[in-house]
Amino acid sequence: MRTLKLTLAYDGTPFVGWQRQAQGGSVQGLLEAILAQLEGSPVDVHGAGRTDAGVHALGQVASVRFASSRDAPTVMRALNARLPPEVRVVHADEVPEGFHARFSSRSKTYRYVIRNAAVVSPFEHRYVWHIPEPLDVDAMQIAAPMLVGTHDFAAFRSAGSDPRTTVRTISRSELLATDASLLSYEIAGDGFLRHMVRAIAGTLVEIGRGWRSPTSIAELLDGGTRAAAGATAPPHGLFLVRVDYD
Amino acid sequence: MRTLKLTLAYDGTPFVGWQRQAQGGSVQGLLEAILAQLEGSPVDVHGAGRTDAGVHALGQVASVRFASSRDAPTVMRALNARLPPEVRVVHADEVPEGFHARFSSRSKTYRYVIRNAAVVSPFEHRYVWHIPEPLDVDAMQIAAPMLVGTHDFAAFRSAGSDPRTTVRTISRSELLATDASLLSYEIAGDGFLRHMVRAIAGTLVEIGRGWRSPTSIAELLDGGTRAAAGATAPPHGLFLVRVDYD
Repeated sequence: MRTLKLTLAYDGTPFVGWQRQAQGGSVQGLLEAILAQLEGSPVDVHGAGRTDAGVHALGQVASVRFASSRDAPTVMRALNARLPPEVRVVHADEVPEGFHARFSSRSKTYRYVIRNAAVVSPFEHRYVWHIPEPLDVDAMQIAAPMLVGTHDFAAFRSAGSDPRTTVRTISRSELLATDASLLSYEIAGDGFLRHMVRAIAGTLVEIGRGWRSPTSIAELLDGGTRAAAGATAPPHGLFLVRVDYD
Repeated sequence: MRTLKLTLAYDGTPFVGWQRQAQGGSVQGLLEAILAQLEGSPVDVHGAGRTDAGVHALGQVASVRFASSRDAPTVMRALNARLPPEVRVVHADEVPEGFHARFSSRSKTYRYVIRNAAVVSPFEHRYVWHIPEPLDVDAMQIAAPMLVGTHDFAAFRSAGSDPRTTVRTISRSELLATDASLLSYEIAGDGFLRHMVRAIAGTLVEIGRGWRSPTSIAELLDGGTRAAAGATAPPHGLFLVRVDYD
C-alpha cells in the first residue's frame, strides 16, 4: 500500500459540500468514484476539513491509500483528466503510512471574503459576501484579534454536530482591508466547530454595522450562547485556504 | 427624451452573446426586457461591441434613450436590482442626445487571457484559455506589436459578416506576461472584424508553439487569407475591457 496526500482547490458552488451524502454531488464522492474506477476497487478519501455546501477551497488536503503502484504524479494527472474543472488537484505527494489528512493536521487556515461596495463584479459574486451598506472596518479590526487563544467557542457553532469539546485554540484572527472595499478575514487554528468561521464572520459584520460593540466578542467566548452571537454568514464567501502538518 | 450611457460588466458564460437573437438569452435582450418593463414601452439598447457567445466584458458601453424622467442613478439601481448577478451596470451617465455607443466610439480595447500552466484554477477556468504545453513568450512578444497600424485584416476575420471594408487601425497590440504563467494580450483599435481578436490570439499562440515565425504576422496583414492565419481562439479567454469616446 502507498499513501498519498492530495492538495485540492475547488469552487464549492455546484457541490453539496466536501462530504459524501445520500443526495447530490460532493467533492469527496467525486474523488472516490474516480479513484475506485482507476483502482478497480473501493478507495476511501479522507479530507482535512468538512467544507459545507457552497464553501470553496484553495488548499484542502485529502489522504488516500492505494493498493496499486500508481505514483503521485500519475494519480494527479489521472484525477485532473477526469474531474470537472470546478475541482483541481494542485499537488500530490507520497507520504508515510499512517498519515491522515484530518487527524495528522496541526492547523487549518480559513478566509472569509466580503465585498463592501454598492456593486459586486459578475466575476466575483460567487466568491464574496456582498454587503452594500457601510461597515466600520476599524471596529471589526479591533474585534478580530480578540478571538486568538484557547477558548470555548460554543457560541459560534451550529446545532447538528455534537463534538466532545467546544474548546479550540486560535493562533491567528485578523481582518485585512486589501483594497478600499474588499475585506478579507483570516483565521487559523487547531480545529473548527460546525459553521464556526461563518458565525464569527457574521458576528464581525454585526460589529461593522454598529449593531454590537467590538468587546461583545470577549463576552461571547467562554460561556456565551449561540443566540447571543451574530447570524451565520453565507457559505459562498468562505475558503479553506491551507492545512498545515508537522 | 434623455440619453443614457451605461457601462456594463458581464460574465459571458451563460449568454448567447451581446446581441439579441431568436433563441437563447443575450445581454442586450435582457436589458431591453427589463427597461421595457420599467418604461411600459419598448426600449432599444445599442452596444459598442457585439461580443460573441461566451465572451466577457469589463467595460462594454451601451446607449439607451428614455421617454421617462428617470435619471442615471435610478436606472442603474433599477437595472442592478433586476439583472442576474452575471451582468452589472457599473456606471450610468446622462449624455447629450445623439450619443450612440457604437457609432460615437473612437476606440475599443480587448484583452485575451491565457493560462500557460499544467493546471488551471477552478476559479479562473471560465476566464482563460488553458494551454498546458510550453509557449515561446518572447516570440509572441515580438509578433504582437507588428499588428499596430492601419492594415487590411481580412486574414483575421470569420465568414458570416460582410463589412464594407476589412481595413482597421490598431493603436496598441501588446503581450503582457503578468506572472510566470499568465499571458494577457491587449489590443486597442478603432474597430474589429468578426472574431478578429480571437483569430489574432490563435495565431499568436501558434507562434508561441513554434508552428510559425513571428514575421508570419506581417505576411498575413494586407493580403493574407483566413486559411493562412491561425485557428480562432476559444471565446472564454476574451474580454471587452473598455470603449473610449472623444
